Amino acid sequence: MEIEVKFHVDFNKVRAAIELLGASFLREELQEDVYFSISLPELLRVRRVPNLGKAFLTYKRITDPGRNEEFDELEVEVSDFNTTVEILKRLGYREDVVVRKRRLVYRLGGVTFELSEVEGLGAFLDIEVISDEVDGAKRKIWEIAEKLGLGEEDVEPRLYQELIRERAGGR
Amino acid sequence: MEIEVKFHVDFNKVRAAIELLGASFLREELQEDVYFSISLPELLRVRRVPNLGKAFLTYKRITDPGRNEEFDELEVEVSDFNTTVEILKRLGYREDVVVRKRRLVYRLGGVTFELSEVEGLGAFLDIEVISDEVDGAKRKIWEIAEKLGLGEEDVEPRLYQELIRERAGGR
Repeated sequence: MEIEVKFHVDFNKVRAAIELLGASFLREELQEDVYFSISLPELLRVRRVPNLGKAFLTYKRITDPGRNEEFDELEVEVSDFNTTVEILKRLGYREDVVVRKRRLVYRLGGVTFELSEVEGLGAFLDIEVISDEVDGAKRKIWEIAEKLGLGEEDVEPRLYQELIRERAGGR
Repeated sequence: MEIEVKFHVDFNKVRAAIELLGASFLREELQEDVYFSISLPELLRVRRVPNLGKAFLTYKRITDPGRNEEFDELEVEVSDFNTTVEILKRLGYREDVVVRKRRLVYRLGGVTFELSEVEGLGAFLDIEVISDEVDGAKRKIWEIAEKLGLGEEDVEPRLYQELIRERAGGR
């Protein structure tokens, strides 16, 4: 299970704090995420990472809807973004929301930091742990968050696609 | 567009005839095809090719239902067979039919020969041309078929998954 908490942050300040913590920089990704029309708590996404020449098909089920911190995730890399999008359209799914971001990925121990500048939304940090032990994972995430100077008031419980939709005037 | 004609054949006889024609042997594939529950003329398949360590997600629409010789095909390679099958199950598709075969692939000019020993069904040759010019492609396929000693009476219009289903007692 993927457990993550998303925070609204100041990109440069948090970046410096993550590096100060001693986390290793893994990679920079330009991401274009196309979300398809299935109903929450399920998510269906095709992601293109043009700077790495990669694409992914991802299914997620949110297991704590509303909080959106616990995800049952299935993901495969696919050889072609456009063809994968087209297959889903043929199967009857509609392109719903597109989320574009520049993301820096860091890791420290079993914790992954995804620091993103999201087009139209600002900067966010996802602190993520892959674990079947939810409570332990949450404790670990919050220990780190506190070290970065982040608190409950910085948490953004809404999904990126919800934020994009709200910004577009809701639907 | 994928245009192909399927023949019921004698594996060894046709293999010798293909090689005599001068076709190049490309590869041997062990294929395990899982077809999912969507309605004809659409097909949704995940293929595992264990001897090459590859897997593919494929959507096809038969554009000449009944004859089953003309296909609009979309295919991507995927990084993991089981995860892809699981994603489709989560999306509500049911595993319908599994087709297992050993396939030899040859090519001559723009023509692909797929000579298969299909578990429980016997040997088949698919002669395939990728082209948007259906008539020309069909003529090319039949020229080759005649050189291999194959005629209309050898054509198998049913899909592999239909043959498997009929063998299992129909449904």
